Amino acid sequence: MAVNGHTPESNVDVLIIGAGPAGLMAAAWMAHCGVKTRIVDKRNAKIYCGQADGLQCRSLEIFDSLGFGDRAWKEANHMIEICMWNPGADGVIRRSDRIPDTIVGLSRFQQIVLHQGRIERFFLDNIKKYSKDTIHVERGVLPESLEIDESKIDDDSAYPVTVKLRHLSEEESTPEQQISGSKVSDGLFRSNLVSKDDEEDLIAKSKSRPGTGEVVHAKYVIGCDGARSWTRRSLGFELQGEATDFIWGVMDIIPITDFPDIRMRCAIHSAENGSLMVIPRENKLVRLYIQLKEVTPDASGRADRSKITPDLIFSAAKKILSPYNIDYEYCDWWTAYQIGQRVGTDFDAHGRVFLAGDAVHTHSPKAGQGMNVSMQDAYNLGWKVGLVARGIAKRSILTTYQSERRRVAQDLIDFDHRFSRLFSGRPAKDVMDAEGVSMEEFKDAFEKGNLFASGLSVNYGPSNIVTKAGDAVEQGDGTKTVLSTVTPISQEAFDKKQALAKGLPVGMRFNSFKVLGQADARPFHIQERLKADGRFRVILFAGNILSATQKARVDKFCAALNAPGSFLRAVTPKDKPIDSIIEVLTIHSAKRTDTELLRDFPEILHPFDKHNGWDYYKVFVDDVSYHEGFGDAYNNYGIDKERGCVVVARPDQYVGWIGELEDFDELQKYFEGCLVFPSKA
Amino acid sequence: MAVNGHTPESNVDVLIIGAGPAGLMAAAWMAHCGVKTRIVDKRNAKIYCGQADGLQCRSLEIFDSLGFGDRAWKEANHMIEICMWNPGADGVIRRSDRIPDTIVGLSRFQQIVLHQGRIERFFLDNIKKYSKDTIHVERGVLPESLEIDESKIDDDSAYPVTVKLRHLSEEESTPEQQISGSKVSDGLFRSNLVSKDDEEDLIAKSKSRPGTGEVVHAKYVIGCDGARSWTRRSLGFELQGEATDFIWGVMDIIPITDFPDIRMRCAIHSAENGSLMVIPRENKLVRLYIQLKEVTPDASGRADRSKITPDLIFSAAKKILSPYNIDYEYCDWWTAYQIGQRVGTDFDAHGRVFLAGDAVHTHSPKAGQGMNVSMQDAYNLGWKVGLVARGIAKRSILTTYQSERRRVAQDLIDFDHRFSRLFSGRPAKDVMDAEGVSMEEFKDAFEKGNLFASGLSVNYGPSNIVTKAGDAVEQGDGTKTVLSTVTPISQEAFDKKQALAKGLPVGMRFNSFKVLGQADARPFHIQERLKADGRFRVILFAGNILSATQKARVDKFCAALNAPGSFLRAVTPKDKPIDSIIEVLTIHSAKRTDTELLRDFPEILHPFDKHNGWDYYKVFVDDVSYHEGFGDAYNNYGIDKERGCVVVARPDQYVGWIGELEDFDELQKYFEGCLVFPSKA
Repeated sequence: MAVNGHTPESNVDVLIIGAGPAGLMAAAWMAHCGVKTRIVDKRNAKIYCGQADGLQCRSLEIFDSLGFGDRAWKEANHMIEICMWNPGADGVIRRSDRIPDTIVGLSRFQQIVLHQGRIERFFLDNIKKYSKDTIHVERGVLPESLEIDESKIDDDSAYPVTVKLRHLSEEESTPEQQISGSKVSDGLFRSNLVSKDDEEDLIAKSKSRPGTGEVVHAKYVIGCDGARSWTRRSLGFELQGEATDFIWGVMDIIPITDFPDIRMRCAIHSAENGSLMVIPRENKLVRLYIQLKEVTPDASGRADRSKITPDLIFSAAKKILSPYNIDYEYCDWWTAYQIGQRVGTDFDAHGRVFLAGDAVHTHSPKAGQGMNVSMQDAYNLGWKVGLVARGIAKRSILTTYQSERRRVAQDLIDFDHRFSRLFSGRPAKDVMDAEGVSMEEFKDAFEKGNLFASGLSVNYGPSNIVTKAGDAVEQGDGTKTVLSTVTPISQEAFDKKQALAKGLPVGMRFNSFKVLGQADARPFHIQERLKADGRFRVILFAGNILSATQKARVDKFCAALNAPGSFLRAVTPKDKPIDSIIEVLTIHSAKRTDTELLRDFPEILHPFDKHNGWDYYKVFVDDVSYHEGFGDAYNNYGIDKERGCVVVARPDQYVGWIGELEDFDELQKYFEGCLVFPSKA
Repeated sequence: MAVNGHTPESNVDVLIIGAGPAGLMAAAWMAHCGVKTRIVDKRNAKIYCGQADGLQCRSLEIFDSLGFGDRAWKEANHMIEICMWNPGADGVIRRSDRIPDTIVGLSRFQQIVLHQGRIERFFLDNIKKYSKDTIHVERGVLPESLEIDESKIDDDSAYPVTVKLRHLSEEESTPEQQISGSKVSDGLFRSNLVSKDDEEDLIAKSKSRPGTGEVVHAKYVIGCDGARSWTRRSLGFELQGEATDFIWGVMDIIPITDFPDIRMRCAIHSAENGSLMVIPRENKLVRLYIQLKEVTPDASGRADRSKITPDLIFSAAKKILSPYNIDYEYCDWWTAYQIGQRVGTDFDAHGRVFLAGDAVHTHSPKAGQGMNVSMQDAYNLGWKVGLVARGIAKRSILTTYQSERRRVAQDLIDFDHRFSRLFSGRPAKDVMDAEGVSMEEFKDAFEKGNLFASGLSVNYGPSNIVTKAGDAVEQGDGTKTVLSTVTPISQEAFDKKQALAKGLPVGMRFNSFKVLGQADARPFHIQERLKADGRFRVILFAGNILSATQKARVDKFCAALNAPGSFLRAVTPKDKPIDSIIEVLTIHSAKRTDTELLRDFPEILHPFDKHNGWDYYKVFVDDVSYHEGFGDAYNNYGIDKERGCVVVARPDQYVGWIGELEDFDELQKYFEGCLVFPSKA
């Protein structure tokens, strides 16, 4: 890379370090927002054999917003039911309960399982498509130093972060995927049982070779480089938390077994031999998480990985599953890990360098949370950085990243801490057995955990992008956020606003029901129209548009929207369509066949374009479909069918604001608090 | 292609001439069945601008069976409602009716609209995947002669059809897509208004160039080469039928209009200015089919195409739509055609050369039938040729192609004949206006036509692959088919069998309801398990497996299945899994949570494999799902929940046989009538 002895230097808006699911999610946002971006990964190989994960409902909703939810849904194994197995009075395991794997009615998706390699493939295809092939993962590229010029951190046009990169040879960047010496691929090289950091090796190796460096100046850097994050360590930030004594093994096999629930998700507590979780996967595979009671940490607190072999793990599985038999001919992959929970002290440095995913939280894999929460970190962060980099949003919205996502990480490790202990504990023999784990308590934790694990219980606190009541510090991770002139509002005032649509809690993701296109009667899930394109959306629940009183309210709201100084006009560049930065969608509750788009709705709700005519895809109706039932959205959201209300959905589908049609001024202030108004300047 | 002055010669099992939707469908079957195949097309260009078509429910079911229904469903415009517009008493058009575009409850899919180029792309990807890249369309290849060696037509190992092919240069094979001289692409070069055949030009041109020929010997040839089919003419077969005086124009535009139903499918009869159909398409486009009352055929019966321009067509549209305004800035494509209906005299020659699609039937495009019926021809034919070529099925099943599909073509042109006249006719002013078309009659025809147009009313007559009562000649196209020892059966006997499952009429496609996987509780549409892989399927409706009486019946049926001489064992090669040729699927009606796969079902229903263990994907239960409701399959099929029944689905999902669990001998005879039993030989 050196030209005539000089180290090449270049500028980029966003540099992403690490191309796992979190890094790819960040890159996807940059592609969808149109931001100049590079993404580098020290590894040469894209797909690690065996990496698999459950995908939560929320992750699927996110994939759908990006445009590839259907690919994951089609290829994955769908987990439908959880069977709980516990010792009976005779000590022999038997099925004690069945519960749905995903709480019924929670989302239009249910939890599924799919190989991480496929998910990365979907991301890569999506990034290629939306960036028009300008963003591609640069593999075998290692960061060597990171500096932030603090004098420039408040200058929107500056590139305050300087990162030196080194390009590795193919040999240097290919990880050794088999350190156990067994014939089957193992994942020990990524397990927390391995303490040595191969990255340090890489740096040492690559430094000895001349002429392969470059210097990148970035406006923003996002570190998604995993549990041993180089970015985090460069910033001097730490992970805080603790390890436990519980060691678990993981095997992906095609099972040959008479255990009747092998294609269900199972949580099995044996009387004395430890616990086991069954995760049925795609392609006939089943993942087993197996507690290794015979392996314990040494004085240093770490288990000796050299003792852990597939035979040792599988013999533990056989004991737990007894009296059922289990065997296999084919093992796809195996690994082992020690349960522990840690969370990062800081999620960003100066609002210029951010950390996401495993770089700031680690926990046990079998809660099925790791990849999901990591991707959701980056989904929360990506649009904020993207809109700020493009000059659309104020830099102050970046403070919400830590308050929103570090809080989720804290909740996650609390959950994992409790759940791991309940799952790794010996089942209580009876009510007097105080050392044992009560199976009722476990089931209860499992059921409650299911809501948490869906990713849909996340509720962000007040900030300049979430207008609600309460203490921002308390509802966040404990740090301060920038508020706006409308946030927080008094509890009393907020309760009145929230009562307009109890089913759309401010701070939570916009739940989805089916509505029909006014112009074509086609059923859509509302979420399908909340695509991840970086736009905020104002959803006008227009109510009964056929009532003269209500029509007058809608007309007045639309006149304000359409006025020269309105937020909608103020944020939109003069040469761009009116829906470029904020899109207004309408859902009314009158009868579809009694209403007509052009006759009954002000033009600002279906803007005219001289090439394309009127926009037929922005006005919807809450009515019965021919083939797909009735979404009954107004009732499900708890919205008055006569009077409606107005809701703001952030680019990541979280509800940011709610109000009456008369609350236009507050809506105006909401956007003044978070977006840049160039047309006014 | 000539080597040392010799013309190269080669053998192939199947040669397909023409790579439009019918040819690609045939090639897809060969890919899925693993048959050595070549497909050639004289054209160089794959995608013709503007070609669009409605896709019927049945076409989508077929796409789904091949594996790409989801791609079409995602990209297409979904047509939901048909609005009928007719003159009121004042002669001004007004909406008189709304009906659903697809009859409710007919299929899990509804009619959609998508560009033909995308559909061809899905086929090409699918063929590449399933043929492991061994079948690819050879473009710019023109057939020059076809000979059938009649002495070899009964020899299964022979290649009786000899076709000379000529490889064209790129220039020769690129059609002139714009013959009108207008700036917008037009489709007149494919319209029936153009009488000159450019193929003759191609042959003349290419014959003047030396050394680019080859000779192919094929077991079977499938001609899918369009309305002017070279293959048909080589065989000396004709299309019979007539042209009408009705001339219609077609335009694909982005409309700018105050007509309120422009995103609905509309059938508009104006009082005096002719009729118009609106077909809303993807990407904001709308297709208009516009009757051209001012253009009439000359003495030869043909319209003068030089008079037809976009301006002429659009001014006709404006008159019909008046008093509404319509304009456009963007026109994607346009063409014109003269309505007529023709059907081929013969669909095959000696059971060795077959014709499909436009090569054997033409009709007006706006019924949305053309591409669908063409693909369905090839879907009917492909598996038969594939299984015969592989030695799995008897050659006699090939006679069913003409009896089944020529009958459909006859029904189609009858429908189109009637529908075209009703749609092109002037609306009656009142009941005394005998020359005018009654709008009630039109609506009635439209609604009845909708069932026909779904592709789901097709009902094949008796043959050695359809065991039912009645006259095979009468229920087919008028020609004879080969019957079997169990076909036809007496009406009385058949009625008793059909009564076992009234919702699964023998001869019609297997309707789909949701059932759950016994092993994993996952909901599936049954049709999702009837994939186009060339296998026949025996669906055992096992009834209440928890009743001892019923369990005994199931055990007896399974013992017969499992016996050495059973059709299942007889058709399966010794070195292949037991489900290679015929797959047995089970749907029982007991409660899911009371039953267990390994405990309650004989192993032949979930065969064991030493590498993969038991098969968890063959036994289903008719029970309530957590997230997707209750398919209620037994009730919907009209099957007794205690006693069940047995049904055969052909590889193309048509019901071929139905009987009691005690009718094993008849089932055996069904397969003896159509499949080759090598293990017995």
